[in-house]
Amino acid sequence: MTESDPLDGIANLDLGRARRRGYPEAVYCEGKTTEQVRAIARRFGHAGGPEAGAVLFTRATAEHAQAVLAELPDAAHDELAGLLAWPRTPPEPTGELVVVACAGTSDLPVAREAAMTAQYLGRRTELVVDVGIAGLHRTLARLDLLRSAGCIVVVAGMDGALPGLVAGLVEVPVVAVPTSVGYGAAFNGLAPLLTMLNACAPGVGVVNIDNGYGGAHLAAQITAPRSPRPAAERG
Amino acid sequence: MTESDPLDGIANLDLGRARRRGYPEAVYCEGKTTEQVRAIARRFGHAGGPEAGAVLFTRATAEHAQAVLAELPDAAHDELAGLLAWPRTPPEPTGELVVVACAGTSDLPVAREAAMTAQYLGRRTELVVDVGIAGLHRTLARLDLLRSAGCIVVVAGMDGALPGLVAGLVEVPVVAVPTSVGYGAAFNGLAPLLTMLNACAPGVGVVNIDNGYGGAHLAAQITAPRSPRPAAERG
Amino acid sequence: MTESDPLDGIANLDLGRARRRGYPEAVYCEGKTTEQVRAIARRFGHAGGPEAGAVLFTRATAEHAQAVLAELPDAAHDELAGLLAWPRTPPEPTGELVVVACAGTSDLPVAREAAMTAQYLGRRTELVVDVGIAGLHRTLARLDLLRSAGCIVVVAGMDGALPGLVAGLVEVPVVAVPTSVGYGAAFNGLAPLLTMLNACAPGVGVVNIDNGYGGAHLAAQITAPRSPRPAAERG
Amino acid sequence: MTESDPLDGIANLDLGRARRRGYPEAVYCEGKTTEQVRAIARRFGHAGGPEAGAVLFTRATAEHAQAVLAELPDAAHDELAGLLAWPRTPPEPTGELVVVACAGTSDLPVAREAAMTAQYLGRRTELVVDVGIAGLHRTLARLDLLRSAGCIVVVAGMDGALPGLVAGLVEVPVVAVPTSVGYGAAFNGLAPLLTMLNACAPGVGVVNIDNGYGGAHLAAQITAPRSPRPAAERG
Amino acid sequence: MTESDPLDGIANLDLGRARRRGYPEAVYCEGKTTEQVRAIARRFGHAGGPEAGAVLFTRATAEHAQAVLAELPDAAHDELAGLLAWPRTPPEPTGELVVVACAGTSDLPVAREAAMTAQYLGRRTELVVDVGIAGLHRTLARLDLLRSAGCIVVVAGMDGALPGLVAGLVEVPVVAVPTSVGYGAAFNGLAPLLTMLNACAPGVGVVNIDNGYGGAHLAAQITAPRSPRPAAERG
Amino acid sequence: MTESDPLDGIANLDLGRARRRGYPEAVYCEGKTTEQVRAIARRFGHAGGPEAGAVLFTRATAEHAQAVLAELPDAAHDELAGLLAWPRTPPEPTGELVVVACAGTSDLPVAREAAMTAQYLGRRTELVVDVGIAGLHRTLARLDLLRSAGCIVVVAGMDGALPGLVAGLVEVPVVAVPTSVGYGAAFNGLAPLLTMLNACAPGVGVVNIDNGYGGAHLAAQITAPRSPRPAAERG
Amino acid sequence: MTESDPLDGIANLDLGRARRRGYPEAVYCEGKTTEQVRAIARRFGHAGGPEAGAVLFTRATAEHAQAVLAELPDAAHDELAGLLAWPRTPPEPTGELVVVACAGTSDLPVAREAAMTAQYLGRRTELVVDVGIAGLHRTLARLDLLRSAGCIVVVAGMDGALPGLVAGLVEVPVVAVPTSVGYGAAFNGLAPLLTMLNACAPGVGVVNIDNGYGGAHLAAQITAPRSPRPAAERG
Amino acid sequence: MTESDPLDGIANLDLGRARRRGYPEAVYCEGKTTEQVRAIARRFGHAGGPEAGAVLFTRATAEHAQAVLAELPDAAHDELAGLLAWPRTPPEPTGELVVVACAGTSDLPVAREAAMTAQYLGRRTELVVDVGIAGLHRTLARLDLLRSAGCIVVVAGMDGALPGLVAGLVEVPVVAVPTSVGYGAAFNGLAPLLTMLNACAPGVGVVNIDNGYGGAHLAAQITAPRSPRPAAERG
Repeated sequence: MTESDPLDGIANLDLGRARRRGYPEAVYCEGKTTEQVRAIARRFGHAGGPEAGAVLFTRATAEHAQAVLAELPDAAHDELAGLLAWPRTPPEPTGELVVVACAGTSDLPVAREAAMTAQYLGRRTELVVDVGIAGLHRTLARLDLLRSAGCIVVVAGMDGALPGLVAGLVEVPVVAVPTSVGYGAAFNGLAPLLTMLNACAPGVGVVNIDNGYGGAHLAAQITAPRSPRPAAERG
Repeated sequence: MTESDPLDGIANLDLGRARRRGYPEAVYCEGKTTEQVRAIARRFGHAGGPEAGAVLFTRATAEHAQAVLAELPDAAHDELAGLLAWPRTPPEPTGELVVVACAGTSDLPVAREAAMTAQYLGRRTELVVDVGIAGLHRTLARLDLLRSAGCIVVVAGMDGALPGLVAGLVEVPVVAVPTSVGYGAAFNGLAPLLTMLNACAPGVGVVNIDNGYGGAHLAAQITAPRSPRPAAERG
Repeated sequence: MTESDPLDGIANLDLGRARRRGYPEAVYCEGKTTEQVRAIARRFGHAGGPEAGAVLFTRATAEHAQAVLAELPDAAHDELAGLLAWPRTPPEPTGELVVVACAGTSDLPVAREAAMTAQYLGRRTELVVDVGIAGLHRTLARLDLLRSAGCIVVVAGMDGALPGLVAGLVEVPVVAVPTSVGYGAAFNGLAPLLTMLNACAPGVGVVNIDNGYGGAHLAAQITAPRSPRPAAERG
Repeated sequence: MTESDPLDGIANLDLGRARRRGYPEAVYCEGKTTEQVRAIARRFGHAGGPEAGAVLFTRATAEHAQAVLAELPDAAHDELAGLLAWPRTPPEPTGELVVVACAGTSDLPVAREAAMTAQYLGRRTELVVDVGIAGLHRTLARLDLLRSAGCIVVVAGMDGALPGLVAGLVEVPVVAVPTSVGYGAAFNGLAPLLTMLNACAPGVGVVNIDNGYGGAHLAAQITAPRSPRPAAERG
Repeated sequence: MTESDPLDGIANLDLGRARRRGYPEAVYCEGKTTEQVRAIARRFGHAGGPEAGAVLFTRATAEHAQAVLAELPDAAHDELAGLLAWPRTPPEPTGELVVVACAGTSDLPVAREAAMTAQYLGRRTELVVDVGIAGLHRTLARLDLLRSAGCIVVVAGMDGALPGLVAGLVEVPVVAVPTSVGYGAAFNGLAPLLTMLNACAPGVGVVNIDNGYGGAHLAAQITAPRSPRPAAERG
Repeated sequence: MTESDPLDGIANLDLGRARRRGYPEAVYCEGKTTEQVRAIARRFGHAGGPEAGAVLFTRATAEHAQAVLAELPDAAHDELAGLLAWPRTPPEPTGELVVVACAGTSDLPVAREAAMTAQYLGRRTELVVDVGIAGLHRTLARLDLLRSAGCIVVVAGMDGALPGLVAGLVEVPVVAVPTSVGYGAAFNGLAPLLTMLNACAPGVGVVNIDNGYGGAHLAAQITAPRSPRPAAERG
Repeated sequence: MTESDPLDGIANLDLGRARRRGYPEAVYCEGKTTEQVRAIARRFGHAGGPEAGAVLFTRATAEHAQAVLAELPDAAHDELAGLLAWPRTPPEPTGELVVVACAGTSDLPVAREAAMTAQYLGRRTELVVDVGIAGLHRTLARLDLLRSAGCIVVVAGMDGALPGLVAGLVEVPVVAVPTSVGYGAAFNGLAPLLTMLNACAPGVGVVNIDNGYGGAHLAAQITAPRSPRPAAERG
Repeated sequence: MTESDPLDGIANLDLGRARRRGYPEAVYCEGKTTEQVRAIARRFGHAGGPEAGAVLFTRATAEHAQAVLAELPDAAHDELAGLLAWPRTPPEPTGELVVVACAGTSDLPVAREAAMTAQYLGRRTELVVDVGIAGLHRTLARLDLLRSAGCIVVVAGMDGALPGLVAGLVEVPVVAVPTSVGYGAAFNGLAPLLTMLNACAPGVGVVNIDNGYGGAHLAAQITAPRSPRPAAERG
């Protein structure tokens, strides 16, 4: 409630820094027309080579993908995940390993979106599909891999119990991504979302339903190489 | 849509049969005045000995309990569970073992309501408190006991993941009782309720939030001694 | 909170036991591509005869079904239920009778999924379609059949009142399956789901909306032949 | 969308007519201070005898009631229902019988509010407490009384199935009043509300949760003596 | 809690009476296959003339309608309402006038379902389309017609305020039918549903979202010719 | 997506301007301890006369109010509204008239919070309590006053239909404030909130449940004296 | 509660005044058949030139648009917004500037509906697309334009945080329009709707989800030229 | 679906490792009786000095706190946060800085629970109270501090927009903790929870409502000193 305006001194704010870390731009295609997506893709293509910045197209339908590929023919495309990445070659991995885990085939689109995103954000990435709370032994069998990660992205629909189970077994943070997979009372992902928010084991951070991109982005930040932080005055 | 009335032949329906199995009456105290509860207790007391029928008073506050005990001084009373049983001596157990399992202290009122109910409905009952998904090894350590049951009542709040975990480990039916224990996004039991309805492992039947009585009643029916069923015409 | 690790002694855990009871695997087709479903079907087909294990494909669209039948041409297929079973011949029934009851045509897909599932899990099964709370006499007319069951699966949409009504008339457990049938305020099955969870008569275990498979699986476990339980140490 | 203002001709609108039928005013006490309720009561008292108009005070706490009785000492007061009526003598009944039915003690406050309201709105009223879907025979035993009514107000919490059951048994309209009685997943009356809106049997009109006053008011209108309607131009 | 079974004396229950009043059967087509609907229609056609009973087909798609008309070519069909009635000629009207009112074109399918249903249930019916709370004068201009009814069915989406407005202007009961018409926060009818349940003016009974059939059925019961009720013993 | 940082040029941003318009600070007391509220009040008191800035304390309990008055003894205090204003003398009114309207006593706390807030933000204010949709004539009788306002704040619980009704009768913007007053299905203000968001008449802006302060603040901005806007470059 | 009817004197009410301000009629096409929309368009066309009144067709699909253009070939049509305006030429702008702001492409349909509506309701309008909370600098870069408005319509999906941010930066009222854009837990606009209702900065009035028309209408009223208000008697 | 049991080789699983990292045990007091909490505290006290393990008591009422302090008199106690820590001396900080940020006094209990938790889990911690989206300049003024953290825990009620704003300004992960602070439509934290899940800026992981403990635990894991991960076989 002090009245002297602290903004007076912020002329040299560097708000663009986050964007300059080398993380690609992300274009959320849902709700965009094919023409709009194509126009955006064209702008990236015109700008030239990799120095122009990389880009991910998320939640792309087959039509969206076709439009992107028409402008950026060498983009990588995972149909199941609805994800395109350009340029095709991911950056050299740095930081710690990101493991993406899910129980099975139905969660695969989201899990692959997460895995591919983490890779294009510069992390070494492993995708584990065959784990789950109903088949506990399969999860336990992968413990060594899970424990070698710097962060684990757990993708789960239905009861969404897997992230809490994993968080109880490892030391590192778990990023939980609920999916809209399941019978009626899953309410399009509400049930696993609530389960994850209420996970008994601490160490679970939750992102939006079906948001594999967002989950992997958070995981990439958690596992990023640590730079020396600037010293700051204290509150 | 046939018009001949099939009720013509049902004059000798025996709708009261369920009640005569020896299961006690249950009086749900919540929303009743102390006077009303006392009057109901008095009616049971006046009727005489055990042949008059047993009775459970559920969700009884301290005031309710006092009113019941004024009329039925030898009733059994579990304060934490808010449950009274009369007559004090439970029936000789028949059927199969009912195991009631929960993770810890906060779920104990509901778990004890369940265990005591199963006992007064005539089952051998075991209460296991020290299990949970966040401490997986504690659950696995009790597997032998869990597998010796004819039905397991799993009581859980927060993420409600325990019933699904247990159902994946045993052959017998699991009755899941969500509780209203937890932080805000548990929404007073909605979160564990949805988790249980969406359990990945089949074999989970869900009852109402905090309804330890109902869960145990279902379990007692599942584990009841099997009588020969009457033959019936087919549809 | 004891620190000695109880998992030290569980090296010979037998977590796969449930799967070896002879219950078929279940493949939930919703959210899977046709190619994925076909690949799964192929794996079962390659494995050889019945000793390789039976399998159910649930929630299969016409395209899914076509893919399964291309690989397993002799699979049984109920189009209305969206269910396929392979091998075609169900196991010889054991245990007690499972009755599946619903009010009418709109709930039939879920009811038939339940009836067919119970049959392929090894139970004698009866499907009763002509019961309901609005036509009470029709329910009462089937009381003899209902009472001859070891467990009744009641499938209901709209007000979902039928399971509670049935539970008040029989001794055995009722498994309630809400369906997404109904006008707007049924909210795709939420209304009957809540009704069933709040059933006034005890003895109702609820499963997920439209989950005929899950309801029948639970019923099959409830009615399974009773084996002698292993003795276990007590808590 | 015609522009000539049809209100030009309605100078002699008689909007006050409904109020002049002799139905008492109703004062909703919840959320009012004791002082406010007392001031309102005083105004009625000052106005003089019955010709000043009757009044109901609904949802009155003990403090509210004390305030009313300080001003209108001869008012009738049902503590359980939280309802006061003044003058004490209800009008001579006209029209058809209103039956108010509920399952038991917990719903009694709302049921008695309904019965007393119907009485003070000028109807012959019967209150039936011992009916319910879990004890079907008790409902069927009262069928003669139910069928002698011009309208039945059914009050129910928990699963809220009773109105639909009754509607399937009688010819007359059923007014359904959900109550906030029940375990967690009743969600303070939401569950029975949805059940009633989805009742399979037609002929059920639903009012607000715990609104015994409103339910009885609607029933009183349905059972009012029929006056010759004025002839009207057609649309 | 008395044990002598009151059902002993109900062998001559007449549960079919409601159905024999002459109200047609109603077949809810949603969720039924075209083949199922056609089979039902055929059964009515085979049974012969009007003495076989009339029938309404509600929520019929174009395909459903075609199936019905193939079997009952002279059925009346309102495409907008998705309603078919057979036989084509409605019964001679008895009882009091039913007015169906809505604000405009978007609510017309439900309003017409209601009006046509009331007509085929034997009431004189008027449909008023041009009323609404935003154009208050149009409602007031129709007051004479509204007041000549024995019951008014008010159909409204969006804010659902019209039934409460009408109830404040008339003496007779209002049956409120919320519709799923409106922008996002109408939540497919939830908003008008809640509005109607909370109507400030008493005298509003609410039915399910988009359930014009149900609303009209209730109105037809309210306006039915009054028969002398049988005398009944009192509670 | 241009990379040159537009913030480079915003060193002389004037973000504090809104606060300097002369609107008082507002302290939301709910969730604060008495000590915290008293400390805040003390800070205002120490700062000296009106030039230090005015302040409103909203949602103040009796204890909060006592704490404020201990530090600012001459503050104005409306107990019903839970609002304190300091300094006691409101500013000289400018701009246009703000009318605050509600149906009755139960909405009065919120309505008075709104009226008092508008006054202390510098507007001429009228409070109209006796309007409502159930007593339409009372609303119509106040049309002249309503139409003389520059903005109308309509406070309503239960069905929340009043703002839409008023918006259909006037030219100026309506600010709608839902209240938590009402029976169960009002869900603590959710029902009137949805009604207002779905108002059929355009011209309604909605604020939070029970937020009389916020509604009046918006109204004060709408009716503020118009200053010449600075010219700005176009997009 | 006075009984003399105040409506006696309102024969010359002028309820049609709002409509005569020159704002066009609006036809909400959703839920209307193509034929209905065409018939409405024809009626406007037949009536003749602009003096017959202007009209907007909102939420028009491609088919709706075709039907309108068949009758009103010179109507303006924004496909993305699903909006048609007739006559094509908007009125000469009066009052203050309306700025419509949104973050990006996905919210564009709603934002353009708002901008075009404000223009056809007679305001000077600016559309700003490139602002957002995640790219704060872009919002700050447009502060001059935002501050030159008389009202700002902020359109936002996902977290819906933009209106609160803008309200903290300007003096004028903000009209917030939530959109249904976003991942699962946006719940089709529920999330941004709640965010906007809870905006920490006062001065935000919220309208329905995706209701760009409604938001712009309110903004046009807020920014309308101020006419001298009639004097009115006080309450 | 391979049948060889992978659990055969996991006899030496080390599930207790997470607990041995030196993080204290946490006892969630809500729902526990005072006696239960005291008994737990006693157990820790009896075990002896710090080598017995540290412990946090969260969500402790004044009574809970008194019980803990009776057994562990030298425990640290933050009354506002309802948190006790024992032993009193936090561990020597390692890893990176955790900044906890909130807007003001109402969120302080949760924010302080978070800050104190992070400290006792071994992190250097800063608490920033004076930031918020409505007073943007205050947030920007603390950017240097925010950017010096390894993880920022943002605590916010009402619109919950602050975490998304912060995430757009920094490179490191943001842990978002919604609080139950706010007016009605905040729905006890649901609104900020949804806002945070839908944050436009990536890099936000959400935990449960009011769960300052859980948020800080996750942050402590994110900022933990990095140990060399074990090499693991790949999937």
